[in-house]
Amino acid sequence: MTTVSAPTWLDVPADHPFGIATLPYGVFSTASDPGARVGVAIGEMILDLAPAVRSLAPPLAPAVSGPSLDALLAAGPRAWSELRALVTAWLTDTALGERLGRHLVPARDAVLHLPFTVADYVDFYASEQHATNIGRMFRPGQEPLTPNWKHLPIGYHGRAGTVVGSGTDVVRPRGQRRGADGEITYGPSQRLDIEAELGFVVGTPSRLGSPVGLAGFPEHVFGVCLVNDWSARDIQAWEYVPLGPFLGKSFATSVSPWVVPLAAFEPARVAPPARTVPLLPYLDDSRTPPWGLDVRLEVRLNGHVVSRPRFDGMYWTGAQMLAHLTANGASLRTGDLYASGTISGERPDERGSLMELSWGGAEPLGLPDGTTRSFLEDGDEVVISAYAPGADGAVIGLGEVRGRILPAH
Amino acid sequence: MTTVSAPTWLDVPADHPFGIATLPYGVFSTASDPGARVGVAIGEMILDLAPAVRSLAPPLAPAVSGPSLDALLAAGPRAWSELRALVTAWLTDTALGERLGRHLVPARDAVLHLPFTVADYVDFYASEQHATNIGRMFRPGQEPLTPNWKHLPIGYHGRAGTVVGSGTDVVRPRGQRRGADGEITYGPSQRLDIEAELGFVVGTPSRLGSPVGLAGFPEHVFGVCLVNDWSARDIQAWEYVPLGPFLGKSFATSVSPWVVPLAAFEPARVAPPARTVPLLPYLDDSRTPPWGLDVRLEVRLNGHVVSRPRFDGMYWTGAQMLAHLTANGASLRTGDLYASGTISGERPDERGSLMELSWGGAEPLGLPDGTTRSFLEDGDEVVISAYAPGADGAVIGLGEVRGRILPAH
Repeated sequence: MTTVSAPTWLDVPADHPFGIATLPYGVFSTASDPGARVGVAIGEMILDLAPAVRSLAPPLAPAVSGPSLDALLAAGPRAWSELRALVTAWLTDTALGERLGRHLVPARDAVLHLPFTVADYVDFYASEQHATNIGRMFRPGQEPLTPNWKHLPIGYHGRAGTVVGSGTDVVRPRGQRRGADGEITYGPSQRLDIEAELGFVVGTPSRLGSPVGLAGFPEHVFGVCLVNDWSARDIQAWEYVPLGPFLGKSFATSVSPWVVPLAAFEPARVAPPARTVPLLPYLDDSRTPPWGLDVRLEVRLNGHVVSRPRFDGMYWTGAQMLAHLTANGASLRTGDLYASGTISGERPDERGSLMELSWGGAEPLGLPDGTTRSFLEDGDEVVISAYAPGADGAVIGLGEVRGRILPAH
Repeated sequence: MTTVSAPTWLDVPADHPFGIATLPYGVFSTASDPGARVGVAIGEMILDLAPAVRSLAPPLAPAVSGPSLDALLAAGPRAWSELRALVTAWLTDTALGERLGRHLVPARDAVLHLPFTVADYVDFYASEQHATNIGRMFRPGQEPLTPNWKHLPIGYHGRAGTVVGSGTDVVRPRGQRRGADGEITYGPSQRLDIEAELGFVVGTPSRLGSPVGLAGFPEHVFGVCLVNDWSARDIQAWEYVPLGPFLGKSFATSVSPWVVPLAAFEPARVAPPARTVPLLPYLDDSRTPPWGLDVRLEVRLNGHVVSRPRFDGMYWTGAQMLAHLTANGASLRTGDLYASGTISGERPDERGSLMELSWGGAEPLGLPDGTTRSFLEDGDEVVISAYAPGADGAVIGLGEVRGRILPAH
């Protein structure tokens, strides 16, 4: 796989996050055509993919003609790479400008939707710094990293039915928690938080009983999106022993509208941090080009940047997460989503959750409007965006995932 | 809701587990008609529901005409009770014998399928005896019940994509575990176990942000099935701190082919055990008829009964599980499945897992063939069956869930 960064006949700056090197897939509708349909973002436009493919590559039309990315995800890696090569060629072939132009829609006129049907949702815990920070706060006085942490990518299943599209308002959850005085109450969460994560979108299913190894990552994973795994820390802290997070997480998980194909990240592949514990063969990526990713995130709270997490410091890669997720023979389905867990770096301004940024409320963040935040207040809006370096100065944008807090019902 | 136990024109003994008081729904096919379709079990026969309903109650036909129970689940409580009343009337109206007889298929000629599309799968931990036993073995020297246990029904999300129908073979999972010597290895689980549970099948969806209270249980839950939540204890023990069970459970979960409507359990409703800790209002069922259920299970290993768990001792009811699951505003989807967790009683022969029955391997079970078992061996077959008392001596059968262990690949 190589990333083509030829200029496009559209007037897209070379460093536009949705330039010719990105070509993310999403689902959109417009006021004049309210049917949800598959699009590819290019600059400030969206290419309406079904009519373009019907006209220029009819055999691929079934994969892009539905109201979601589901059929494209299921079409498999050969179709993904064929379609990506075709769209790249079309958008760089000036002779096609007129023919394709009629299928371009200004992005500002489009409504973006949850792009695929989420099958199972798994959340990992792959940042050493995040796991260490949370361990310190949730289990003070104990070793923050559990003994298993460097032997396997810890993960758990989340609620697929409450994965929502970017822009969906999030109602502050109520829940049961134990106060500092030991009293057990039920009410609106007082420690509502975000988690800035990358999500990996599975396309190709696998057979029950057959693990998918490290090498299967690009065969099975279609692309990458952004995830905000909203978390109610007070609910979570009371419920999570011994069976893990449940209602502290299951009220909403937001995903970005654009899924960037894995192929776009070739120039952003980097070595993950040095492993300090030997890995079992099924997780050992030392002899293959590893899947660390130089993705840089930005977390904005009410428009103000509060953090700049970096994915390149993540201890576990997406390929390792997939190998582990299926190591017991668990099968994959088209639409499975697995997220990295909160992306937190070593520096305080690289932490991907408010719990870490405010150190559990001990060090509230100051906002430009003079207010402070330890956790989210009603009306707060959080936007997480990200990009990766492409070849020749190109920028691989992941767009953004956005959500606003509504008061508890 | 009352359970009709009038005699049927079919020759079904009064105490048959699939008598007129049960009428469970499932999905079947036959060699002569290989299309999967909805059926109702009556005695040793299956009523092919779509043609019967098309002929006798056409407006309900869309709910039963698909290849699964999905449309019926989505049709909601009014349709459920209307259809159940109609089928009861048809099967007790001798005049309809000829007209319906042509839609009856001998159960022995039918292949039974996974009856519905599983949306999200949640597993609870609602037996005090099970949680205490597991706590003692997984966390020796500590208080076996965590401080939250009597304040809320502890649960976690499992893998919906690996829920399989009864009779599906289960491949022994491989996984990572830590040996007694501290060595970390990857290989076939050596402590493969069962968990005998009831499953609650959600029909009516709910809106994101709006909790479903205790009273919503019969509005949203269509019926009850049997669940065997296969568990690899060695994988689970190593992975589960801090985020809960993951690969130790996600390789397979078997469900019974017949879903018994909630209405059938009216005569089996009993008070749950006395609560020893006051409950928050959203979980307090002391002022409404509670949903404890007198369901009696039987676990057979290679044909030999190894346990007879009873659901009436469960600390948390299905209604409380549902109220808790949605207390944070998490929405329900048609096809959500939540299971009770292992059903274990006070007596040693009422324990619903081998881990408890063999006390972690310290007290292996003897089988009639002279062999012993602490955990499952390749080739072992486990069958879990259950029934509840109906009115006037009727028996409400839940059928059985069956699975056999294949060697690791």
